[in-house]
Amino acid sequence: MTTAIRRLVLDVLKPHVPTILELAEALSKLGGITGVNLSLSEVDQQTETIKITIKGDKIDYLAVESVIEDFGGVIHSIDEVVAGKEIVEGVETAQDR
Amino acid sequence: MTTAIRRLVLDVLKPHVPTILELAEALSKLGGITGVNLSLSEVDQQTETIKITIKGDKIDYLAVESVIEDFGGVIHSIDEVVAGKEIVEGVETAQDR
Amino acid sequence: MTTAIRRLVLDVLKPHVPTILELAEALSKLGGITGVNLSLSEVDQQTETIKITIKGDKIDYLAVESVIEDFGGVIHSIDEVVAGKEIVEGVETAQDR
Amino acid sequence: MTTAIRRLVLDVLKPHVPTILELAEALSKLGGITGVNLSLSEVDQQTETIKITIKGDKIDYLAVESVIEDFGGVIHSIDEVVAGKEIVEGVETAQDR
Amino acid sequence: MTTAIRRLVLDVLKPHVPTILELAEALSKLGGITGVNLSLSEVDQQTETIKITIKGDKIDYLAVESVIEDFGGVIHSIDEVVAGKEIVEGVETAQDR
Amino acid sequence: MTTAIRRLVLDVLKPHVPTILELAEALSKLGGITGVNLSLSEVDQQTETIKITIKGDKIDYLAVESVIEDFGGVIHSIDEVVAGKEIVEGVETAQDR
Amino acid sequence: MTTAIRRLVLDVLKPHVPTILELAEALSKLGGITGVNLSLSEVDQQTETIKITIKGDKIDYLAVESVIEDFGGVIHSIDEVVAGKEIVEGVETAQDR
Repeated sequence: MTTAIRRLVLDVLKPHVPTILELAEALSKLGGITGVNLSLSEVDQQTETIKITIKGDKIDYLAVESVIEDFGGVIHSIDEVVAGKEIVEGVETAQDR
Repeated sequence: MTTAIRRLVLDVLKPHVPTILELAEALSKLGGITGVNLSLSEVDQQTETIKITIKGDKIDYLAVESVIEDFGGVIHSIDEVVAGKEIVEGVETAQDR
Repeated sequence: MTTAIRRLVLDVLKPHVPTILELAEALSKLGGITGVNLSLSEVDQQTETIKITIKGDKIDYLAVESVIEDFGGVIHSIDEVVAGKEIVEGVETAQDR
Repeated sequence: MTTAIRRLVLDVLKPHVPTILELAEALSKLGGITGVNLSLSEVDQQTETIKITIKGDKIDYLAVESVIEDFGGVIHSIDEVVAGKEIVEGVETAQDR
Repeated sequence: MTTAIRRLVLDVLKPHVPTILELAEALSKLGGITGVNLSLSEVDQQTETIKITIKGDKIDYLAVESVIEDFGGVIHSIDEVVAGKEIVEGVETAQDR
Repeated sequence: MTTAIRRLVLDVLKPHVPTILELAEALSKLGGITGVNLSLSEVDQQTETIKITIKGDKIDYLAVESVIEDFGGVIHSIDEVVAGKEIVEGVETAQDR
Repeated sequence: MTTAIRRLVLDVLKPHVPTILELAEALSKLGGITGVNLSLSEVDQQTETIKITIKGDKIDYLAVESVIEDFGGVIHSIDEVVAGKEIVEGVETAQDR
């Protein structure tokens, strides 16, 4: 297995339209992506904040970013990046508890 | 596996009648849907708020929306959309804790 | 697999007698039901509130309702309905946390 | 698989002697029972409250009750009954959270 | 599988010496025991309270008790007993939540 | 299986640029590493604190440290080290609860 | 399977240097140990408290103790000992909740 970006978690601000549904479909069609999960975090009058979890075998961040921008969205932060030959979960240590 | 909408979580306001039972049966008969879970969140005098989780291999949002509207319901929000070749769960990161 | 009601969660008020035991046995003998779980939520002087989880491959709600009524019980609410070809669990999203 | 009582959870008040150990051994020898779990909930000067979880393929409630009474115990309540062809777990719904 | 005591959880008060290590080794050598877990709950100047979980296919309580006493310990309470042909876990019901 | 460092959890302070993405890709290319998980803990005006979980069959700490320093980062602390022939999880005992 | 110490959880106070990394490597090389997990609990100016989970098929406590002492560390307490033919997890009972 080659090294690649295997999972991304993004915090994204977007307008209500186009909807979270259309954005999910567009992202899921990008190469190197096997699935996306878009979850609504906060809703304001004009905008909504969503958490996007993207899984794949070779995620292209710039392609993801450009789709989100095409949909009028802005990436607030990259909350998690998983890279390598396998997906590694973050480990909760005594420091986190 | 082709790319499609594989799971939806909707927040829906509906009248007490027709019941959550009838709505579940109607939704579960739609093409591309393998199962639905309707859970009662809140109950008011005239209406009830339910959370609808829909799983399938090719969910047609517009068909879902029209069944819900036929039953007098309104989709408050699309809380989660999962799309692609596989179901991806949302990941809890340090930001969420 | 055909589409059917595969799981129900009911909130039921019943008198102390007949007991939760007898009601469980009666419900479990209905066609299309593979198992039932009756759990005591609240106890009052004359009545008790129980949560009934019913699993099956073709649950007949009206048959369930009539057994409960035969036992002097009343269905307060249908808290969850799972229908379709498979059992789908409700998904906790950012909105629920 | 025939329909039967497959799991019971009982809240029981008993004297300190005979001990929880002896009661567990006696219950586990009853027909139709594959295992019992007796857990100490509360301890008072003369008595102790225990939670008894009983699993089996054909639990005979009256036989259970009579063993408990032989040991000087009283069944406060039947907290859960699972019946049918399979063991069904109680489902936590939006109402329980 | 014959009926036997398959798991015990004991609350034990013991002096600091001999250590929890030596007690664990001694208990684990008893017949009918496959493994023991000794966990330190509280530490006082002269004594320590430990929780002992014992698993086996035919646990002899009196043998366990006598080893503990040989090590200067006292069994405060038997917190859990699991008996029968299989290990049954205690079930959390609506009453416990 | 030989003995080696199999998992590391590091608390790292880094500038916003280069991004968490680039650091993840660089770390994941190091020998003896099978995957990395970088999770954003805190964000300040000039810097960000990230938790880095590294998994591998022979992690070279000095190589990891030098990549992090090349990216302008500083290792605040080594929060967890897992070494040996297999990955062992930290166990929560009565003392931790 | 013979009876042996299969898992230990130790609370250890050590100086910052040598590091948690070096101590992990040294412990993991001891006979009868298959893996170690060292997790940072507290950090003071001169010292740090770590939780050490050790897993193996025949752990030699005295060898472990002497390595820790060679690294300037002190074992505050043995928080958990697992011994026997298999690893047994501590069981949470009604008393612990």
